[in-house]
Amino acid sequence: MSDRVATVRPVEELEATGIVAQVFDDIRRVKKLDRVPNFWRVLATNPAQLELTWTRLKAIMHPEADGRTGQLDPLTREIIAIAVSATNGCGYCINSHTTAAFKLGLTQEALGELLAVVALFNGTNALAEGYQITPDVLPPLE
Amino acid sequence: MSDRVATVRPVEELEATGIVAQVFDDIRRVKKLDRVPNFWRVLATNPAQLELTWTRLKAIMHPEADGRTGQLDPLTREIIAIAVSATNGCGYCINSHTTAAFKLGLTQEALGELLAVVALFNGTNALAEGYQITPDVLPPLE
Amino acid sequence: MSDRVATVRPVEELEATGIVAQVFDDIRRVKKLDRVPNFWRVLATNPAQLELTWTRLKAIMHPEADGRTGQLDPLTREIIAIAVSATNGCGYCINSHTTAAFKLGLTQEALGELLAVVALFNGTNALAEGYQITPDVLPPLE
Amino acid sequence: MSDRVATVRPVEELEATGIVAQVFDDIRRVKKLDRVPNFWRVLATNPAQLELTWTRLKAIMHPEADGRTGQLDPLTREIIAIAVSATNGCGYCINSHTTAAFKLGLTQEALGELLAVVALFNGTNALAEGYQITPDVLPPLE
Amino acid sequence: MSDRVATVRPVEELEATGIVAQVFDDIRRVKKLDRVPNFWRVLATNPAQLELTWTRLKAIMHPEADGRTGQLDPLTREIIAIAVSATNGCGYCINSHTTAAFKLGLTQEALGELLAVVALFNGTNALAEGYQITPDVLPPLE
Amino acid sequence: MSDRVATVRPVEELEATGIVAQVFDDIRRVKKLDRVPNFWRVLATNPAQLELTWTRLKAIMHPEADGRTGQLDPLTREIIAIAVSATNGCGYCINSHTTAAFKLGLTQEALGELLAVVALFNGTNALAEGYQITPDVLPPLE
Repeated sequence: MSDRVATVRPVEELEATGIVAQVFDDIRRVKKLDRVPNFWRVLATNPAQLELTWTRLKAIMHPEADGRTGQLDPLTREIIAIAVSATNGCGYCINSHTTAAFKLGLTQEALGELLAVVALFNGTNALAEGYQITPDVLPPLE
Repeated sequence: MSDRVATVRPVEELEATGIVAQVFDDIRRVKKLDRVPNFWRVLATNPAQLELTWTRLKAIMHPEADGRTGQLDPLTREIIAIAVSATNGCGYCINSHTTAAFKLGLTQEALGELLAVVALFNGTNALAEGYQITPDVLPPLE
Repeated sequence: MSDRVATVRPVEELEATGIVAQVFDDIRRVKKLDRVPNFWRVLATNPAQLELTWTRLKAIMHPEADGRTGQLDPLTREIIAIAVSATNGCGYCINSHTTAAFKLGLTQEALGELLAVVALFNGTNALAEGYQITPDVLPPLE
Repeated sequence: MSDRVATVRPVEELEATGIVAQVFDDIRRVKKLDRVPNFWRVLATNPAQLELTWTRLKAIMHPEADGRTGQLDPLTREIIAIAVSATNGCGYCINSHTTAAFKLGLTQEALGELLAVVALFNGTNALAEGYQITPDVLPPLE
Repeated sequence: MSDRVATVRPVEELEATGIVAQVFDDIRRVKKLDRVPNFWRVLATNPAQLELTWTRLKAIMHPEADGRTGQLDPLTREIIAIAVSATNGCGYCINSHTTAAFKLGLTQEALGELLAVVALFNGTNALAEGYQITPDVLPPLE
Repeated sequence: MSDRVATVRPVEELEATGIVAQVFDDIRRVKKLDRVPNFWRVLATNPAQLELTWTRLKAIMHPEADGRTGQLDPLTREIIAIAVSATNGCGYCINSHTTAAFKLGLTQEALGELLAVVALFNGTNALAEGYQITPDVLPPLE
């Protein structure tokens, strides 16, 4: 038995029509995937939300698809995704972004270092909050 | 200037009437305080919520007020409150519960140890999630 | 089918060599366990992280292993671990620390009281934040 | 002294040019505000992010600006914003959305009820996680 | 194999006696359910906690059971429960409250809009915190 | 008035003796700072915790101080620290790590892109949890 009980039925790729079919095509093309991941198939139950979310994710994570260059390279962006997802404890997201990062060349050893940094700062965040440490005096913003 | 902008005006102790006045009296008596903390004065803007929250907190944190004995001693309960509040980063709550724990005898050195444990497990929680570690095989519940 | 998909393969106890084998031995000895839990077997995929994390956890949670005495007793430390893990919703961690606390004598009824305190303060934390309650005037730190 | 130290200098409304000026105009018009809130003035330090974030927020929170009707009414959407922000403890966000909800007719008493619901479920979430409660058997998705 | 390992054995409905049996009856009656959900059966391992939690939840979520009228309608209260549970990532809670909201008339499309709002503000909360944006100048509380 | 009320008095640099003085020296040297930040001065109220935390942070964040090379470069490690701290909403930590990242060459525009990624995935994490999306079928671990 599976513990995770999805609250809506994902849209099958073959059932997709209209804007949903267009977004599914774009996801497969931009992400170079054979199948549309469950995340997008579930969002497709509300086509407007699917389109809004994909448009935003594509702009932020795949700027090269629009001929733009991001300030951060693709692997750094996936590293940030893993850091956020591990901090939030989102299992689906951790699996998805770890798979993507491995494809981009992250080694298992580097994943260990990444998660060590994530763990370290989840710990020190709790210390800074737990003592209510006041900010260091900073130079004013220019 | 203060960064924290309360969204409602706290009820003044002298303005309190009816159920609010009764709860304020009970808070001062049970917690042995001269003044009602801001938390309760703000909840008083919705008297039903004030009463429900105080009744629950009193039952859980002050069982001796009803002649009952808790399984956990009062300092352990405040230690749990600090652990939760530091993990959530709730400044008001950290100040309030640290003050209460100091009154119950927690030393500054023990606070350091407590927060070290809190930090440690905020870190390891992120590791267990970040790797999506599967549970150890456990004996079945009796 | 299992929902949780570990992102790396845990190191088998029999495969361990060098520093990993030494840390595994120390874990079994200090924690009085027959088998090394999955958490440590996964961390072993990055031996430096395994050693750093075990050294820290041992110093904070098992001071007696080095002939030191902590300010907080072992059960209180496990109680804090449960409070943090329940607040973060880390399933692996909750199972692991609840098992450890039961071994140290926590009863099922006391677990109920512990989680009642955890639930109470996760609730009041949201209230204090939700109203942005300003801190009570506190005496200055000595 | 203020505790909160912004990490970048907000863009002044009078300095805004190009896409930033256009978005600022749209924010003032759609939200019926005299001044652009700090949130948007800070995002303007990265104009592409300002535009992406505003486009998304406008589509979700102000569908009427595009002649569409949302499934949820505007006050319900602000109520959700308060619930999320109180759960995360985001002070800026709580102030901003509580102000917006008051404008849409939320009374102080209803705010009390809203936050009581938020507190209740932050508490029960911790209980469900703290005991690792298994899901109820649900009917399969149609 | 299931990933979620409950840490205590739920009380069977037929085993319930005394206050536990009374609360179970009240839950079935007020919530119009044939079976008592696992959440309440687990809390029943500590009868005092069961009663306290049910009393509070009933007062906040089912005021009509006591002849009172809440400020927020029942569907809005379940929407808040979903928003909180999605933000915290509590699987049990998300399933339970989504089922309840569907019974009260929430459509799958409206769920999509609700979660779009939840996602939007989890994102903007991180932005407001990530830049440490200072609060807008607000009119003083009356 | 300041909203943040530290719960212990930080140790002054001139008061430091013994192990505290040694760690303070090492912090100034390794981090190339003139003054010891408040975080470390507060941890110094429990010297054992100060030493443990600094040893760990130094090993993970400053491997070059021990002649080692990390898998991730120093700026990437600070980027992860910002991502974690923004997700947790830890103000002290955000200020501290943003300052460090600016020193390592992060531009204000790149900070905008970094926080856009952080915001995006805090949003999608809530979607994946809010729908309880089941994991994609993954190839088994080798």
